[in-house]
Amino acid sequence: MLSDLKAQVCEANRQLEPSGLVKLTWGNVSGIDRASGLWCIKPSGVDYGALTPDDMVVLDLEGDVVEGKLRPSSDTKTHLVLYREFPEIGGITHTHSAHATMFAQAGREIPCFGTTHADHFHGTVPIVRALTPEEVEAGYEHFTGVAIVERLRELKLSPIEMPGVLQLHHAPFTFGKNAMDSLKNSIALEMCAQMALGSLALNPALGSIPSHILEKHHSRKHGPAAYYGQK
Amino acid sequence: MLSDLKAQVCEANRQLEPSGLVKLTWGNVSGIDRASGLWCIKPSGVDYGALTPDDMVVLDLEGDVVEGKLRPSSDTKTHLVLYREFPEIGGITHTHSAHATMFAQAGREIPCFGTTHADHFHGTVPIVRALTPEEVEAGYEHFTGVAIVERLRELKLSPIEMPGVLQLHHAPFTFGKNAMDSLKNSIALEMCAQMALGSLALNPALGSIPSHILEKHHSRKHGPAAYYGQK
Amino acid sequence: MLSDLKAQVCEANRQLEPSGLVKLTWGNVSGIDRASGLWCIKPSGVDYGALTPDDMVVLDLEGDVVEGKLRPSSDTKTHLVLYREFPEIGGITHTHSAHATMFAQAGREIPCFGTTHADHFHGTVPIVRALTPEEVEAGYEHFTGVAIVERLRELKLSPIEMPGVLQLHHAPFTFGKNAMDSLKNSIALEMCAQMALGSLALNPALGSIPSHILEKHHSRKHGPAAYYGQK
Amino acid sequence: MLSDLKAQVCEANRQLEPSGLVKLTWGNVSGIDRASGLWCIKPSGVDYGALTPDDMVVLDLEGDVVEGKLRPSSDTKTHLVLYREFPEIGGITHTHSAHATMFAQAGREIPCFGTTHADHFHGTVPIVRALTPEEVEAGYEHFTGVAIVERLRELKLSPIEMPGVLQLHHAPFTFGKNAMDSLKNSIALEMCAQMALGSLALNPALGSIPSHILEKHHSRKHGPAAYYGQK
Repeated sequence: MLSDLKAQVCEANRQLEPSGLVKLTWGNVSGIDRASGLWCIKPSGVDYGALTPDDMVVLDLEGDVVEGKLRPSSDTKTHLVLYREFPEIGGITHTHSAHATMFAQAGREIPCFGTTHADHFHGTVPIVRALTPEEVEAGYEHFTGVAIVERLRELKLSPIEMPGVLQLHHAPFTFGKNAMDSLKNSIALEMCAQMALGSLALNPALGSIPSHILEKHHSRKHGPAAYYGQK
Repeated sequence: MLSDLKAQVCEANRQLEPSGLVKLTWGNVSGIDRASGLWCIKPSGVDYGALTPDDMVVLDLEGDVVEGKLRPSSDTKTHLVLYREFPEIGGITHTHSAHATMFAQAGREIPCFGTTHADHFHGTVPIVRALTPEEVEAGYEHFTGVAIVERLRELKLSPIEMPGVLQLHHAPFTFGKNAMDSLKNSIALEMCAQMALGSLALNPALGSIPSHILEKHHSRKHGPAAYYGQK
Repeated sequence: MLSDLKAQVCEANRQLEPSGLVKLTWGNVSGIDRASGLWCIKPSGVDYGALTPDDMVVLDLEGDVVEGKLRPSSDTKTHLVLYREFPEIGGITHTHSAHATMFAQAGREIPCFGTTHADHFHGTVPIVRALTPEEVEAGYEHFTGVAIVERLRELKLSPIEMPGVLQLHHAPFTFGKNAMDSLKNSIALEMCAQMALGSLALNPALGSIPSHILEKHHSRKHGPAAYYGQK
Repeated sequence: MLSDLKAQVCEANRQLEPSGLVKLTWGNVSGIDRASGLWCIKPSGVDYGALTPDDMVVLDLEGDVVEGKLRPSSDTKTHLVLYREFPEIGGITHTHSAHATMFAQAGREIPCFGTTHADHFHGTVPIVRALTPEEVEAGYEHFTGVAIVERLRELKLSPIEMPGVLQLHHAPFTFGKNAMDSLKNSIALEMCAQMALGSLALNPALGSIPSHILEKHHSRKHGPAAYYGQK
């Protein structure tokens, strides 16, 4: 079932480590088949190098496992909320990549300091609030997803124009058209965070780039007038 | 004798370099078989790439070599004290990994700045005091172990909830259920230290994460209600 | 047509990723054959690992594609202006390498802080201004090239003595005698930027090196009295 | 002639790049055979990957080439002065490794901030002054060696207890018993510089470690009572 999806999600998970985004088992990628409403995710705590497509755990949009022998990622309920609330996304990546996590821990959003950022994220990458003790008790992973959705709606941003967020005290989540695309956004977010850290060291008062540059770079790669890449 | 243990300890030592934790021969891993009271450790000053399981030096809990042709690590007496005083641990890793060593040199503890830290260390990773001239003279490596034990007891922390410390002016030591587990804690500590350095640059007044988040993340991975990984 | 040139430009593009200069598809190299006035560049948005010499897109100095099935890099018009205005250059590399981009984003030029810098760049690596909204509208990539040319002329620097610039809010461009030489200048610029960031952290008031050291190092490698390398 | 020496010097040069110490061709290693007074060094500007033992250029202590078809490193006269003035050394490594060069550029010495440093360098790694315009004119590389010798003598340090220096505005030079040993000291110096940069960020007022710790660590590895490594 869903062999192409499982293969892509497996491959995206396997690329987490060589991409420099994760140590140990600190990250997971999922992807969804919107036609069937089924999606799959990395099994919990399994080493990336050993993953095969058949290790991917397939779930439905109620969160029930419909295929797979292993337990799904401990972050499964966060992914579930995001797929339910954001019909436009097809993949999700969660990592603790070093520089993006530095900003999440410090509680600082990442303004758009340059065109690399504008190419991928349409403005400031937002911080998502921490959960309350009651939310943690009632369902930590579920309410993490709820808080992410709440934050993007508050900012009137779609997960396509802002395909990444930083959860306070925690780490980044990124989204994409599919699993591989969400992984690329994690790579982009980590690099933008690293560059932002250095730019702030060189110029602590640095502000966002002018909006005409931001809009130009974002629209070169995204939207109806995009002209980056092959047709 | 103890071929499984020697194989695991050898493999953990061989992973020190590709994990980015050590340069040259700056690190060692040991593991113990509690049933027999025998343990083994890397030989001193030997390149990791050339290590075979039979190069591991086997000792008893008196510190006497019972098998092996090579001299054990110069840090052997530190490991010995830790195995004698902490019956709950099965492995120890010592490295001079860059970021953890920066904190050890600077004399700064590493507060729990995020969930990555909480997943592995139950609170602030402590600094262990430097030895006195008399202790250095009487037995540098022995008293290093004594000071580590003293510090964790003073803080009423077990080496399982706090599987890592930073010795002032020196570098980190980590513990684990076995050799490989102690290595994973060294990898986690190095990453937490790197992230802490960056988070402090972004927010010099940063404090620990709220306790309900710390407890939730620690208990997801450790203790009776853990639900991370496979059964 | 131009098989040697296409092979060299392809190889230089393939080295962008292992050199640590680019993530994803964030960079491109081109090279020109001055005899024929034809030049070639990486196709847009294609992964480096898959590039073959025949994927290179060949253009003339009017900017018309004369060979190749793929769309050229989205930065093609910037390269075109540079080849037209700087007859002394034979290759151009554009990346978003982390440390050079930190300076570009922060709007800080890179003074000559050491001999590594002097070996490659004859003085301060300049910032090129951002484009106006009108220029962005009229031709973003074209006017990026125009602004680079304008800046070097304003400083009375040739692109051979100053084979690199930083565009404000954006990233570096480097030049060279040929494609491979421009790539080497990108590697040198990234390293000089990394070192400059660290030197400024250690000494925020740091100034340029004495001119007699700068001139000596530059002339060891460049110009009529160079004695570096093989004859 | 000297096939063992050429093989070791070649191998040490080939390790410069995978050790992370050099980019492009920014570094060189030499080694000497004291019995014959002959020594060899990397040829100038040649890529490391292509080096074979027969590419090493053999010279005598007058600086005359006695074997080899290639031009020797442009830094040859610096090495020559060091071999003539320091009969106790058998190898020299020069790199522009990133973190050591940051300190050289910033004009800051590296105090002994930890035991990693004490294991290799007996105290503060010194800055060597820049050359005067007259010295640069009269013989840049020769007087670089002269200034290094002058600085260590001024500090009453032998190149064995202090096997590394930082030349102001330039980069590090390290020494050793032989070529490979000088390379190891370059690796150690780069790591100590990286750790020092981070420790200073965490504690700008940080001072040297207590002398009884410094002496203990240095003597564990060096001198008559050393007990590190195998017999």
